[in-house]
Amino acid sequence: MEAVTAPKPWTSYILGQSSLFPILICILSQGYRIRADDGGMEELTTEKEAEESHRQDSVNLLTFILLLTLTILTIWLFKHRRVRFLHETGLAMIYGLLVGVILRYGIPSTSYHNKTPPSCSLKVGPVSTLLLNVSGKFFEYTLKGEINSREIHNVEQNDMLRKLTFDPEVFFNILLPPIIFHAGYSLKKRHFFRNLGSIITYAFLGTAISCFVIGNLMYGVVKLMQVLGQLTDKFYYTDCLFFGAIISATDPVTVLAIFNELHADGDLYALLFGESVMNDAVSFVLSSSIVAYQPTGANTHTFDASAFFKSVGIFLGIFSGSFAMGAVTGVVTALVTKFTKLHCFPLLETALFFLMSWSTFLLAEACGFTGVVAVLFCGITQAHYTYNNLSEESTKRCKQLFEVLHFLAENFIFSYMGLALFTFQNHVFSPIFIIGAFIAIFIGRALNIYPLSFLINLGRRHKISGNFQHMMMFAGLRGAMAFALAIRDTATYARQMMFTTTLLIVFFTVWVFGGGTTPMLSWLHIRVGESSTAEKKRLLRLQNYLRVGVDPDQDLQSCGDSFQVLQGDGSQSEGQSKTKQESAWLFRLWYTFDHNYLKPILTHSGPPLTSTLPACCGPLARCLTSPQVYENHEPLQDNDSDLILNEGDLSLPYGITANGASSSSGPEGSAWSWGINSKRSDSTSEDALERELDTREHELLSRGTRLVFPIEDLA
Amino acid sequence: MEAVTAPKPWTSYILGQSSLFPILICILSQGYRIRADDGGMEELTTEKEAEESHRQDSVNLLTFILLLTLTILTIWLFKHRRVRFLHETGLAMIYGLLVGVILRYGIPSTSYHNKTPPSCSLKVGPVSTLLLNVSGKFFEYTLKGEINSREIHNVEQNDMLRKLTFDPEVFFNILLPPIIFHAGYSLKKRHFFRNLGSIITYAFLGTAISCFVIGNLMYGVVKLMQVLGQLTDKFYYTDCLFFGAIISATDPVTVLAIFNELHADGDLYALLFGESVMNDAVSFVLSSSIVAYQPTGANTHTFDASAFFKSVGIFLGIFSGSFAMGAVTGVVTALVTKFTKLHCFPLLETALFFLMSWSTFLLAEACGFTGVVAVLFCGITQAHYTYNNLSEESTKRCKQLFEVLHFLAENFIFSYMGLALFTFQNHVFSPIFIIGAFIAIFIGRALNIYPLSFLINLGRRHKISGNFQHMMMFAGLRGAMAFALAIRDTATYARQMMFTTTLLIVFFTVWVFGGGTTPMLSWLHIRVGESSTAEKKRLLRLQNYLRVGVDPDQDLQSCGDSFQVLQGDGSQSEGQSKTKQESAWLFRLWYTFDHNYLKPILTHSGPPLTSTLPACCGPLARCLTSPQVYENHEPLQDNDSDLILNEGDLSLPYGITANGASSSSGPEGSAWSWGINSKRSDSTSEDALERELDTREHELLSRGTRLVFPIEDLA
Repeated sequence: MEAVTAPKPWTSYILGQSSLFPILICILSQGYRIRADDGGMEELTTEKEAEESHRQDSVNLLTFILLLTLTILTIWLFKHRRVRFLHETGLAMIYGLLVGVILRYGIPSTSYHNKTPPSCSLKVGPVSTLLLNVSGKFFEYTLKGEINSREIHNVEQNDMLRKLTFDPEVFFNILLPPIIFHAGYSLKKRHFFRNLGSIITYAFLGTAISCFVIGNLMYGVVKLMQVLGQLTDKFYYTDCLFFGAIISATDPVTVLAIFNELHADGDLYALLFGESVMNDAVSFVLSSSIVAYQPTGANTHTFDASAFFKSVGIFLGIFSGSFAMGAVTGVVTALVTKFTKLHCFPLLETALFFLMSWSTFLLAEACGFTGVVAVLFCGITQAHYTYNNLSEESTKRCKQLFEVLHFLAENFIFSYMGLALFTFQNHVFSPIFIIGAFIAIFIGRALNIYPLSFLINLGRRHKISGNFQHMMMFAGLRGAMAFALAIRDTATYARQMMFTTTLLIVFFTVWVFGGGTTPMLSWLHIRVGESSTAEKKRLLRLQNYLRVGVDPDQDLQSCGDSFQVLQGDGSQSEGQSKTKQESAWLFRLWYTFDHNYLKPILTHSGPPLTSTLPACCGPLARCLTSPQVYENHEPLQDNDSDLILNEGDLSLPYGITANGASSSSGPEGSAWSWGINSKRSDSTSEDALERELDTREHELLSRGTRLVFPIEDLA
Repeated sequence: MEAVTAPKPWTSYILGQSSLFPILICILSQGYRIRADDGGMEELTTEKEAEESHRQDSVNLLTFILLLTLTILTIWLFKHRRVRFLHETGLAMIYGLLVGVILRYGIPSTSYHNKTPPSCSLKVGPVSTLLLNVSGKFFEYTLKGEINSREIHNVEQNDMLRKLTFDPEVFFNILLPPIIFHAGYSLKKRHFFRNLGSIITYAFLGTAISCFVIGNLMYGVVKLMQVLGQLTDKFYYTDCLFFGAIISATDPVTVLAIFNELHADGDLYALLFGESVMNDAVSFVLSSSIVAYQPTGANTHTFDASAFFKSVGIFLGIFSGSFAMGAVTGVVTALVTKFTKLHCFPLLETALFFLMSWSTFLLAEACGFTGVVAVLFCGITQAHYTYNNLSEESTKRCKQLFEVLHFLAENFIFSYMGLALFTFQNHVFSPIFIIGAFIAIFIGRALNIYPLSFLINLGRRHKISGNFQHMMMFAGLRGAMAFALAIRDTATYARQMMFTTTLLIVFFTVWVFGGGTTPMLSWLHIRVGESSTAEKKRLLRLQNYLRVGVDPDQDLQSCGDSFQVLQGDGSQSEGQSKTKQESAWLFRLWYTFDHNYLKPILTHSGPPLTSTLPACCGPLARCLTSPQVYENHEPLQDNDSDLILNEGDLSLPYGITANGASSSSGPEGSAWSWGINSKRSDSTSEDALERELDTREHELLSRGTRLVFPIEDLA
């Protein structure tokens, strides 16, 4: 193969670039509506063609919008009727499938020009910009991609289907960032930080294990296929590893939506959510590193230590760089919102928040890091610091803004997945590979969860119970990230096979595992904070409401009260008091630093710096401490006041024993949500009230369960 | 000129398509990160180049984001310090200018490859898709645009500046829709509908007058330039008319922001706002029609009756089609939100609202109509019907969502304008043309406002006073729409000259007229509802707050009370009672129809259909009427209940006399805002309270002014 000939991936641009781009682009540009201004003659055909194309693009985008609208209406119907066997993401996929079938088989191929485009020859290799000389006039052309010779004659044939195939990068650069940011921003900090060690272990070590196990198993499958003669093209070891990396990204969406609805155990929620959010980032960087793993010399695609370490280096470099980038932007936003009185103008504040969060993504990309990872950590930082500086109005606005973006992006991806099964034109269905992949992800997940849980439990007082492990095993759904990574490059035969397999795995796991979450929870005896019938629920809700009462002006007290209750609760439980010392020293170090220095510097909360910094830094401390801190210096008002309580009172449960199926962490979990809800309880909307009632009901239910009906604990 | 050679506008794609597109596209695609998968060899240079380009794109977008961030921070500072001589849009332009200077002169041209791209020859004319044959492999290329022969060698030279030049269509398809939708959605219905006749006259007739006056004057200027030998290229009569069309679009942003802040007269506000919103649409369609005006035969660019009527037909067709499209989508949204219980899930509701509003744009574009116009009427319809069906939470969410989008889009456009003065590379500064244009827009505006006001006043009891006319004359700022229309096509010499001139006109009007709004208001003795010093304001605010009191649960009563007061007020004023009969019969017909049939069908408000429809339609009426209507059947609770009052009580002022400078319509205006604010008064956020206080203060101030200090009326 000569240096000048292009490698195969160019084809990806036939599959790929004919995609959202053109749609967006033509929507954006209506580019070819050329108008003559110096005479009657004009390129009428081109104009007509372009207008037709523009119209087609609008219709395509409309298709997606109508799909989303349909999904929204059905979601409402499902929520209204309390249908739970199918989550909205599964639903979006089904609608996508249906529309895909219609588009593929129902509509005759509408090609607006059937002639093969003219071609010209060149000796040098493909360049990104080409000039065309037509009778002395020069025209600029940009490269779209390589075309298989068999496809030359139908370049324009399957326009519609090709256009419906989005550019993979759209997923990374438009749709994933809001999803990932929202994930980071809505992270339930308390549970997350309490389980940070476990989450990091699962996310980093677990994903690596899963990746290598799946990669090696699939390499076996590929070898088997070669023996059976089922493989018509090359499939390297690195391809298998790449498959392992992309398919190791678990998706939090479906299971966690159900967890949220059922008010399942807070720690389990945190573990699953934390793991799946972090392992999206890990698997993203992992797959990039594997692609960058290019052994030198002739003997390619075998193990090469230097290339391996290079990959590891790249992994670490990109990950930490992106992390730093996200954290820095978050900190800058916190500082800006702290030292200006921007909170008088919620619109400005929201716009600033949005722009800064978006700039993280661009900044990371501009520096060669990974925008998606940076956005995740930016979200976490924003939630931890900036959130405290925003006005009440803005916190709501920002949350709602990202909620809508997240919702739209997510449902778009899932309905697109359904569509892609039929509109994507280069599927490679290989039964052996697919069956092998299903077995491999099962084994990979098992070798991730069970051994790691065993290891984690060694260092953890508050053990992860067997049932939790089974649930985590079961909840290993694959979703948006796996899909986005798989569609990123579908140039080669191997990648096409992976893409098809990934799509099927996503379908299967979302529908079967997603739909089976509720039965599985009850089968594993994992406590959920909801009674069986809606009537009973309503009654209890009313009852709880009457018992607790909501007074927006008194959230400080009620917040304090709730902690009082909790403290009482906590000290009653046995064996919970000596949890913290061992495993969490790093975390505690960080926490103290954060609480004493970072929070006061970056937000209006925490103790005044004048009291935490040494005396020599007095002027600086006074300058950095906001006046509000002195007024607000009341630990309970802080958003993660429970953490502060934890720190002040070491006898409080840091981790909570979960013997068997009983979820004694209920009150802790609800205390957190109580804190949050109290902060937001002055939203008078029905929705907020509903949510608050839900939370309180959950809290009282679970607390009630433990205190009033202790017998159920053994169930 | 042969048929196969391309007309000049192709060049627009060098100027144009090297623009936001590439930025967005490359951000989206990172398209050229090609990876080899079947060997070590790969197109390293291309990859490097592409990565560099991707980075450059990220940096470019970052530039804009930082610009916006800077603008936001300065806006805050200005609001904080109550600086009013410079509006945020003017500010954004200044920052844009500064950054433009830095980019143009401060940074050495960084070109990542200096070689001239290879070229190939072809006999046939430029096609949209070209195939390149490199040693048997085929690559697909898409047309970017024509290049001047002198520019061939620096195709890649000024990459950075070229990339900062956005695609014009970005403005139409990404940035304008949220702005226009927001304008339609936030239209103050009462004042708008009350002045509908005048607004339509100004918008349609006025814009047409302005367009033709400016066009003809500019044709004179162009002839003069030809005589003086200052014109180096062609400039046709249609070009002049086109210039007249684009420069006739007045911008509501700057003046109205100040009006809002100062609580200037409600009717004047409505007139200006309505005119500028509608004339954006008119001037958009007008300019398209002028472009479509292509006289047949050899004698081009002279008057051709058939082509003229074709243009008029196109204008009417496009306008009414787009109008219908927008209205239909709004109605569909209203029906969907009425007949589902979606309002239990604000997130779903907001997403649906957003999607349906967006689909209007796509639908119109897909049908060959104008998306921007459709979106305007969709916004009005949504505000009139759908708004009533949304849950309280959703109304807030939708409003805030579009507020943020609008804010970002608007400031983006204005900061881009500043940037474009230096980064756009084909400016044609022609002093004669520029001076001529300034004079022409002045004369055009004058011939629009004064004669039409005279005509309108003939049919209007509530005359538009001379001072109001002067203010409308003064407030003819040019902004986003003029700019977007001008940048749409900068291919020819004439268009480039227009673009440069438009840019300068926008700068001048926004800075000078925008900054002069406050002095002008006081010079014209137009009442604004604000006292001079901030201290006095605070005191009054507190005082008013104490006097009025806010009880969110009692908005029905307070709403009713306010109307009681108004009725009293209204009947005290002389000569206002017999206003309505003549000019408004069409409006009243429409209003009755709307109130009796459309509102009950589309929303939960209005009288039950069972009472308004004839008996024979009983079952249908019962089916269409929502149960809430029977409960809610209380005219005052309706959002535009004041209109109903108007209808029920013909003695109420329909138009209000405005003798001299006294703005007796103050209470009417504030009654409206009172109604709106009462509806939203349960938002407990500081901001809402602030706004509410502002409104009430305004109301009480102006009412107080008239009742308590009548002597000031003569001032």
